[in-house]
Amino acid sequence: MAKTIHVRVPGTSANCGPGFDCLGLACSIYNDLTLSLTEEPGLQVDIRGDGAHIIPRDERNVVWRSVQYLLQQAGHTEWRGGRLEMVNYIPLSRGLGSSAAAIVAGLKAANAWLGNPFDRHDILQFATALEGHPDNVAPAIYGGFTASITRDEQVECLNFLPRYRMRYVVAVPNFPLPTKKAREVVPQQVTRADAVFNIGRASMLVGALCKGSERYLQYAFDDALHQPYRAPLIPGMYEVFDAAKEAGAYGAALSGAGPCIIAFVPEVRHCADAVAQAMQRRFADFGVRARMLNMRLDTRGAHVVNTPQYEQEAAGEAAPRDDY
Amino acid sequence: MAKTIHVRVPGTSANCGPGFDCLGLACSIYNDLTLSLTEEPGLQVDIRGDGAHIIPRDERNVVWRSVQYLLQQAGHTEWRGGRLEMVNYIPLSRGLGSSAAAIVAGLKAANAWLGNPFDRHDILQFATALEGHPDNVAPAIYGGFTASITRDEQVECLNFLPRYRMRYVVAVPNFPLPTKKAREVVPQQVTRADAVFNIGRASMLVGALCKGSERYLQYAFDDALHQPYRAPLIPGMYEVFDAAKEAGAYGAALSGAGPCIIAFVPEVRHCADAVAQAMQRRFADFGVRARMLNMRLDTRGAHVVNTPQYEQEAAGEAAPRDDY
Repeated sequence: MAKTIHVRVPGTSANCGPGFDCLGLACSIYNDLTLSLTEEPGLQVDIRGDGAHIIPRDERNVVWRSVQYLLQQAGHTEWRGGRLEMVNYIPLSRGLGSSAAAIVAGLKAANAWLGNPFDRHDILQFATALEGHPDNVAPAIYGGFTASITRDEQVECLNFLPRYRMRYVVAVPNFPLPTKKAREVVPQQVTRADAVFNIGRASMLVGALCKGSERYLQYAFDDALHQPYRAPLIPGMYEVFDAAKEAGAYGAALSGAGPCIIAFVPEVRHCADAVAQAMQRRFADFGVRARMLNMRLDTRGAHVVNTPQYEQEAAGEAAPRDDY
Repeated sequence: MAKTIHVRVPGTSANCGPGFDCLGLACSIYNDLTLSLTEEPGLQVDIRGDGAHIIPRDERNVVWRSVQYLLQQAGHTEWRGGRLEMVNYIPLSRGLGSSAAAIVAGLKAANAWLGNPFDRHDILQFATALEGHPDNVAPAIYGGFTASITRDEQVECLNFLPRYRMRYVVAVPNFPLPTKKAREVVPQQVTRADAVFNIGRASMLVGALCKGSERYLQYAFDDALHQPYRAPLIPGMYEVFDAAKEAGAYGAALSGAGPCIIAFVPEVRHCADAVAQAMQRRFADFGVRARMLNMRLDTRGAHVVNTPQYEQEAAGEAAPRDDY
């Protein structure tokens, strides 16, 4: 049987309110990718699940381009063809990091194919170069929460787990919102006061998550830099935030550039279902149909899944290293 | 013997680089205040230490105005006169929170005089109203590190201790820099990119302090919102930052609006003296004479000191409650 690499990459939610282009988290919804490469040219792409009818199956495929990017970085140009099997659960163009997941899946699988010449910090650099910003690719790679910065053209990312168990309840509206469009409405100049507004909330959010200072989370998801400008693109946005809080969430925010809305729900309150219903109903008041996801934090990040057929042949073939 | 209240308030360093108008810390340098109030009008002010020749001794005195402010808030207008003894170690107008310390000392002492009708959260509101911004008064009240925000005209402040023991090495240049002047040079409009720059670093700084992720501190003290504009007011500022890092500090930043520069030095490296010397020498290269302070974190914040003479009489007199 041919060698295959099977990787699993979590969906991600960027910004978390005040942490614009910086904070992100990984959640328990996944895209799976199975990769095999050939020296003969020729690409075969099978897609099931979200976006199966939209995602290109040729050389424009983002996963494939990411595979090729990594192979080039490693100087391995001999793998000119291959086969991708994608099973997608992360909704496309909704603000849950489907593009970041595709990129990270391709990089991670190609890296494993070559025996892992690159570490996660390298993968983070490649993924950011392909995606353009680190806030989704960082949690997709590391899991948990991440705070990312760029310095001297290097991306650095602090990875941390919060002190509470939370449910991440996400409303997925029935319309896509291209990130490009959602970015265009955010102004290039902001007031110092708005910048300070977000610096304070982002600091408080990270501190409250790390220290377990629950009561501060009620203040910590507010934002002045992007949500006010994106609100017109998402009918009922602030009202859905309020509905989530009234039903027991610590707070809510746009997931990435939207239109998904993520609510941060303390597990001890056992109110995730109530929060989900409240958000769905409030969206409906504004004519938006939304399906609801009730997720946990993903704490592992992108990883290689050892498939049974792989293990059967491990003795006879050079096995790629398991994940770090 | 007349009833007296003796309070001690730490100096503070605001901003910590990226946490403009939000982050602050309390350090082990103190102003002491002894207060007694009388129903007869008449104010007597004794001042020793820093600023003794500058600080007004009449009704304009900031400590006295803060005392009066709290008495008014409590509806106790019968205390029209009093006596203040101030012993000041916090340098005046250098960026170590001398103004915040004066305000907090007055509020805290008056509160204790009345038997503590207000809690620390109330004191934080009063102190911010008097000072105009919370970033120094919050750590002066709570100790440790603080992340402050204003919401619905209420100040909220998350208080936390870092996971490392650090020394806070401060260079105190031999010239004052009035906060007003240092604020005027900071622009009212900033680019979104600069705002994101600071949001990322402030998030990383708080996360790295809370989680003990030491290696991220090397990136976390950078700032794009105020230090670049204040640099022309402080000859050699960036060079002194670099000197501190080269000598072993995690990083350095303007303390508040400056001109003090604070370096964050890991205690395990035993290099605080070397950092202090390096900073002092580098400042000298730019013609700035600076004295050096080697401080610890103050973890207690403003508190009532029970004086021996007070304890002798405690049995015979209604004792104000000790600090919370």
